[in-house]
Amino acid sequence: MRQVEVLTEALPYIRQFRGTVMVIKLGGHAMVDPAVLEAAIRDVVLLHYIGIRVVLVHGGGPEITEKMKALGKEPKFVAGLRVTDEDTLEVAQMVLVGKISSNIVSLLEKSGAHGVGLSGNDGGLLVARRMGPQLVRVGDHDEQVDLGHVGEVQVVEPALLSTLLEAGYIPVVAPIAIDRDGNSLNINADTAAAMIAVALKAYKLINMTDVDGVMDRDRTKVYRRLSMDEALAMIGSGAVAGGMIPKVEGMCRALEAGVRFAHIINGNTERNLLLELFTRDGVGTMIFA
Amino acid sequence: MRQVEVLTEALPYIRQFRGTVMVIKLGGHAMVDPAVLEAAIRDVVLLHYIGIRVVLVHGGGPEITEKMKALGKEPKFVAGLRVTDEDTLEVAQMVLVGKISSNIVSLLEKSGAHGVGLSGNDGGLLVARRMGPQLVRVGDHDEQVDLGHVGEVQVVEPALLSTLLEAGYIPVVAPIAIDRDGNSLNINADTAAAMIAVALKAYKLINMTDVDGVMDRDRTKVYRRLSMDEALAMIGSGAVAGGMIPKVEGMCRALEAGVRFAHIINGNTERNLLLELFTRDGVGTMIFA
Amino acid sequence: MRQVEVLTEALPYIRQFRGTVMVIKLGGHAMVDPAVLEAAIRDVVLLHYIGIRVVLVHGGGPEITEKMKALGKEPKFVAGLRVTDEDTLEVAQMVLVGKISSNIVSLLEKSGAHGVGLSGNDGGLLVARRMGPQLVRVGDHDEQVDLGHVGEVQVVEPALLSTLLEAGYIPVVAPIAIDRDGNSLNINADTAAAMIAVALKAYKLINMTDVDGVMDRDRTKVYRRLSMDEALAMIGSGAVAGGMIPKVEGMCRALEAGVRFAHIINGNTERNLLLELFTRDGVGTMIFA
Amino acid sequence: MRQVEVLTEALPYIRQFRGTVMVIKLGGHAMVDPAVLEAAIRDVVLLHYIGIRVVLVHGGGPEITEKMKALGKEPKFVAGLRVTDEDTLEVAQMVLVGKISSNIVSLLEKSGAHGVGLSGNDGGLLVARRMGPQLVRVGDHDEQVDLGHVGEVQVVEPALLSTLLEAGYIPVVAPIAIDRDGNSLNINADTAAAMIAVALKAYKLINMTDVDGVMDRDRTKVYRRLSMDEALAMIGSGAVAGGMIPKVEGMCRALEAGVRFAHIINGNTERNLLLELFTRDGVGTMIFA
Amino acid sequence: MRQVEVLTEALPYIRQFRGTVMVIKLGGHAMVDPAVLEAAIRDVVLLHYIGIRVVLVHGGGPEITEKMKALGKEPKFVAGLRVTDEDTLEVAQMVLVGKISSNIVSLLEKSGAHGVGLSGNDGGLLVARRMGPQLVRVGDHDEQVDLGHVGEVQVVEPALLSTLLEAGYIPVVAPIAIDRDGNSLNINADTAAAMIAVALKAYKLINMTDVDGVMDRDRTKVYRRLSMDEALAMIGSGAVAGGMIPKVEGMCRALEAGVRFAHIINGNTERNLLLELFTRDGVGTMIFA
Amino acid sequence: MRQVEVLTEALPYIRQFRGTVMVIKLGGHAMVDPAVLEAAIRDVVLLHYIGIRVVLVHGGGPEITEKMKALGKEPKFVAGLRVTDEDTLEVAQMVLVGKISSNIVSLLEKSGAHGVGLSGNDGGLLVARRMGPQLVRVGDHDEQVDLGHVGEVQVVEPALLSTLLEAGYIPVVAPIAIDRDGNSLNINADTAAAMIAVALKAYKLINMTDVDGVMDRDRTKVYRRLSMDEALAMIGSGAVAGGMIPKVEGMCRALEAGVRFAHIINGNTERNLLLELFTRDGVGTMIFA
Repeated sequence: MRQVEVLTEALPYIRQFRGTVMVIKLGGHAMVDPAVLEAAIRDVVLLHYIGIRVVLVHGGGPEITEKMKALGKEPKFVAGLRVTDEDTLEVAQMVLVGKISSNIVSLLEKSGAHGVGLSGNDGGLLVARRMGPQLVRVGDHDEQVDLGHVGEVQVVEPALLSTLLEAGYIPVVAPIAIDRDGNSLNINADTAAAMIAVALKAYKLINMTDVDGVMDRDRTKVYRRLSMDEALAMIGSGAVAGGMIPKVEGMCRALEAGVRFAHIINGNTERNLLLELFTRDGVGTMIFA
Repeated sequence: MRQVEVLTEALPYIRQFRGTVMVIKLGGHAMVDPAVLEAAIRDVVLLHYIGIRVVLVHGGGPEITEKMKALGKEPKFVAGLRVTDEDTLEVAQMVLVGKISSNIVSLLEKSGAHGVGLSGNDGGLLVARRMGPQLVRVGDHDEQVDLGHVGEVQVVEPALLSTLLEAGYIPVVAPIAIDRDGNSLNINADTAAAMIAVALKAYKLINMTDVDGVMDRDRTKVYRRLSMDEALAMIGSGAVAGGMIPKVEGMCRALEAGVRFAHIINGNTERNLLLELFTRDGVGTMIFA
Repeated sequence: MRQVEVLTEALPYIRQFRGTVMVIKLGGHAMVDPAVLEAAIRDVVLLHYIGIRVVLVHGGGPEITEKMKALGKEPKFVAGLRVTDEDTLEVAQMVLVGKISSNIVSLLEKSGAHGVGLSGNDGGLLVARRMGPQLVRVGDHDEQVDLGHVGEVQVVEPALLSTLLEAGYIPVVAPIAIDRDGNSLNINADTAAAMIAVALKAYKLINMTDVDGVMDRDRTKVYRRLSMDEALAMIGSGAVAGGMIPKVEGMCRALEAGVRFAHIINGNTERNLLLELFTRDGVGTMIFA
Repeated sequence: MRQVEVLTEALPYIRQFRGTVMVIKLGGHAMVDPAVLEAAIRDVVLLHYIGIRVVLVHGGGPEITEKMKALGKEPKFVAGLRVTDEDTLEVAQMVLVGKISSNIVSLLEKSGAHGVGLSGNDGGLLVARRMGPQLVRVGDHDEQVDLGHVGEVQVVEPALLSTLLEAGYIPVVAPIAIDRDGNSLNINADTAAAMIAVALKAYKLINMTDVDGVMDRDRTKVYRRLSMDEALAMIGSGAVAGGMIPKVEGMCRALEAGVRFAHIINGNTERNLLLELFTRDGVGTMIFA
Repeated sequence: MRQVEVLTEALPYIRQFRGTVMVIKLGGHAMVDPAVLEAAIRDVVLLHYIGIRVVLVHGGGPEITEKMKALGKEPKFVAGLRVTDEDTLEVAQMVLVGKISSNIVSLLEKSGAHGVGLSGNDGGLLVARRMGPQLVRVGDHDEQVDLGHVGEVQVVEPALLSTLLEAGYIPVVAPIAIDRDGNSLNINADTAAAMIAVALKAYKLINMTDVDGVMDRDRTKVYRRLSMDEALAMIGSGAVAGGMIPKVEGMCRALEAGVRFAHIINGNTERNLLLELFTRDGVGTMIFA
Repeated sequence: MRQVEVLTEALPYIRQFRGTVMVIKLGGHAMVDPAVLEAAIRDVVLLHYIGIRVVLVHGGGPEITEKMKALGKEPKFVAGLRVTDEDTLEVAQMVLVGKISSNIVSLLEKSGAHGVGLSGNDGGLLVARRMGPQLVRVGDHDEQVDLGHVGEVQVVEPALLSTLLEAGYIPVVAPIAIDRDGNSLNINADTAAAMIAVALKAYKLINMTDVDGVMDRDRTKVYRRLSMDEALAMIGSGAVAGGMIPKVEGMCRALEAGVRFAHIINGNTERNLLLELFTRDGVGTMIFA
């Protein structure tokens, strides 16, 4: 009878999700194990099968660093932030578009769905502005640092994504944008995913990362459901900290702009995506507007 | 992890079933318990939610008999077959259309779906010919018996069903047909369901009855999957016998005419419908072409 | 040349009516003669042929009473109003849906059109609220009387009717509604017809009853055309009285809500429907907004 | 009750005719009385109102002759056939297109329908070939006579007519065609009407002329219905003679090519068009395939 | 390389013009030379080929005058304005519709496009009101003059034009309108073209006349581009004078009502239409809103 | 007047090309000068503007070689054919997809059109089979050589291209395919372009390379127009030789399979694309079926 309960629990979600858009961010640090990535892609294809319109956005920091070294170039970081000089940008673009997107598309194909690898200049998808020097905390003081060819997304033109979703494809977006003059810029994948979710009026924005969700201060429990206000309050109180802050902030901005639900789940645990979406309790953190 | 397995097993079926037509016969002897009927209808609505186009066909022998008695009329049977005189026909029509269909439509409404009760004259759906006298085994000899206003379906005009399915309704069909002169005739609900399935090019024909499926001669095990040839062979060998013979024969005729799968499941066991459809092994018997 | 005059008079009406919705109430007391009913249905099919979208609503008081007696149950009336207990409701539903609607659908079929018998729970068509005790004039005083399972229509959901009209069917509606909990309720057929006409933005609401129309106080002449204000004034002045009051009031409410014309004609005189619709003078009473 | 009979007789025709194409030839010798023409146009508009797609084709011999004389030019005839020299062609074109078509369009407008005057070069409607010299019986011998700018229609391109009918206009066609080099040619209006009827797969081709129909040899009675074979036999036997021969032959060719019914009626008797179409017996001659 | 420059200049215009409506007035005094007219029509067909929706409006003063004389009637003018008596109107209609329109349609056909000749009563296109007596400068004083059957356009019903353009035809409009009673009226072709342009929300209104454009006072140079305000100011200052005043005023009214560009070009110089439309500088005067 | 001639010559081509598909191969050795590439892309955008549906396919040999060297890897060739080992494939994919396609998309964006970079696994576009060892002429003998991860295209699935063209995008295809197991393979860009042209039923296949077209044996003149048979005969006779053989053979196969015209033009001469397409004589070689 357990089976019937699972089905009875899942079927109404299936109805509810059908035809909706979900933007799924595949974290660069999650799914470094190819088997885990392949399993995640299989689950994405299941979502696609039951009529969810999935957009994938991926990062790729570790692989860029690795390829830089193979080319004999030393990746440069300031306070943990990558400095993207001309060479780095070229490598990033080649790795993100020509290698990682391509690999994900091949995995989708293998699981029975057609993907399309995109970067921000395809169809004028992501238009950004170069960030310029920024105040960064270096050691014990703040410094003006120019991170190089790094952009802040200004406009998302979702027409190409809509065309592809409508025609039954799964777009796979690499975090590269163009500026008004046609130059490429490296952008933050979390932010890109959030802005794409807003532009597509997505139902859900799902961040598959390498932690289990938003946790309490002692890292003993994961919050299953948080209102946007609760989530923001936890940043204020310090409960949410470090790299989780920009993720949660970005998600809350997306919720404010119309996305219905945002999820953080651990992409390194196989099959979490299905459990989060089709069970009442889920496995990660769901933030709602 | 059990949940993930159930989901991973179920989701591909959901994709496969979406948009297909399933004709479900609700047996008169199954689901005499109102709670069981209500649970079955809830499951039907779940199927409807995930995009399956369900047509319900129901019987109603026991209730007709009961109402006859309440009217002070003695139901007449010859060798277990009901003799349908003028009065019986009127009662049958009133009970099947005005009571049972109506009750099922109300239960669908309660579970969140819109049903539409139909009998064979609605939209010219079921045109039959009066059967006339038939050779029936009475005791130890055969006798010519006129079963009265009983018909054999000749034409199924599925346009009304298609219109209603297209518009999102669940048709609920009572086993009453009309002849070419506009007279009503009592018809066999199993046969009607099978012919409707053929006319609608249904994907599945599901018979919810009061046995667990096609069983071996010793009634110790239920066959999970049978090819049409195997099923027909079991009739020949006597393994399938009694009231199950016409059911299996009707299903095989439907399979020959293009229906993809036929199922016999026990409607008295709650939630069998979901298990049969969304698990690899199922719980009843599936016959395939 | 008489023929040409009739045609020249009729053709512009045919143009004007094409594609419009007309809701025709077939009175329970009119057309008790099967030949008259059959002739009326033939005329309805002529309307259907020339592109009018007809919805039929019927009553059935006399037949319910008759069937009650056959079942050995005494119909109960208070001050002329039927008291609908549990048993009465069951009989009413069976007679109205399983017998009268079915008969009308068969007659339509015979005349070459497809009908579909509906009651208020089909497609969530008519949602009502149980009336509860009402002040009724009994003899020389008022009394609180609970008329039982009798409802007041609150919502008409016309989508099913529109779907069927669009697909070329003639819906035949029995005056049974459901409440929010899915229980059946007996409702007034005149009111149901009027509310359906409003919900469908009908062009005409036609009441085929057993009188010739709205008459003057001496019953010597029938008013051919009345404005809504004139009709209401005649109720005030007592010229319209008795059972005609609720009919006229209901029609005026329908006119106020957008129906363009309401007609009262004598259904017992054959072919009145055609004369009322296609001649300048008509034969009954037309009330206009 | 006479009215009801007329209506009951007419309504099924109305259904049958709805959406069909009827090509009506208005004879130049019929309807010289403006009041008769105006009445005929009013009836055409009634047909249009009830959904018949009417194409009008007109002649205009008398008016061309009259205008020629006003211009001081002597119309030339050989054995009753007009010789169309350069001047005559110019006058014919101006009279047929600029005067008669225009007048009919204005009458249609007045009766509430939009007409569009066309000649054969509009939309490449009628492409003809100049006839060249022909053997003509002059007095007691045959002579080679060149009738001048007179054409034989070779191609009817009905797209423009279909476009206009679809959009609700009544095309009014003058009997002028163009040859492959763009030169205008005078053509026979009866033939043009018949060929247009074929190209449009018309349901009826109606010739409104100045006789009552096909008559017997003694001119005592009009045949109401003739099969195509009967009609052709009557030409063979001499019963059909003179100017009626080419009309009947043209109609029979149209019937052979798919037109369903051809009618000859007297356009000088008011309202004949309605009587012919909406009564069982009609008033002229109907020829069927 | 000159070719490439022309193409590079022209192609963006082609994109910009595709699908837009252009109303082109062919002046009666321009293109009296048949070869020039034929060349202009060839260019119109090129515009049609590349997806511009062209409506032609033509005048025809000189030909009317000529035909009047051939009929032995003396054309009457007061202060240069034609007085249109009954006879003149008939001749004008026959010449404009039956001769000039017809000729243009034949030329279009010859160049590979389908035209449709129309006058104002076709499809109720142009409804006008008879002007009545007007104050006209005769010699050195003003006089009340009744110009006869001359109308002022009140309503343009563009549905027929849209239908024809949509279906790929080139409408050719003669300057004849009808009044509310169905009488024909002579109208000004410049005004008709401007009002049709407004009714069709045309992109351009192009007047092909017999001057090179709007010129300065000394007739030494043609203004290539004028804003509407500049053009009106030039009327005020007397730089624009004579017959050019009503043309420029009409164009400015059209621009005010939504037409985007108005052009005056010399129709007597071959191929000016292409140069004006597909080169940056053009050859005539373009007025913009 | 030169301008008018160019326009009159070009406009009919514009009509003829509108809505057709043209597949343009941008050769890796042509357009190594960024300015030349940018000019070519501007012309492509002009084609796009006037309604031609352009698909770009590019090569990239020189850049792959260059990037290999930057990575410290020695590109390996056998008899002029690249040997694609694992590393080479990764570099090729990154350069072709992540760099060259991306650059072309940015140039399209700059000229006002939206491009979309694709490789063969996107949308299952190009499915290939690994070639395996091949007989290659090495010096004076033939040798079995395994060229590594090099594929032969077996299936072109054009749905994604059609979707993108329909939605107004310019697809930019890199010559990378996948095999049935999802592995990437290097493919020949000329062949890919030809097969894509066939799959899309392209009107033209245009090869922009570094020679002026098919030349005679003495390299003194370029053939402007060749029939497919003439072109093949020139291979037989040795007039067409070397690297031009596979190009011409591929084009002829495409012509046989339904492509209407194939062109070879010199991509290094600016604006050749426009001259070839919009002038009667063109500048390269056109081969027709």
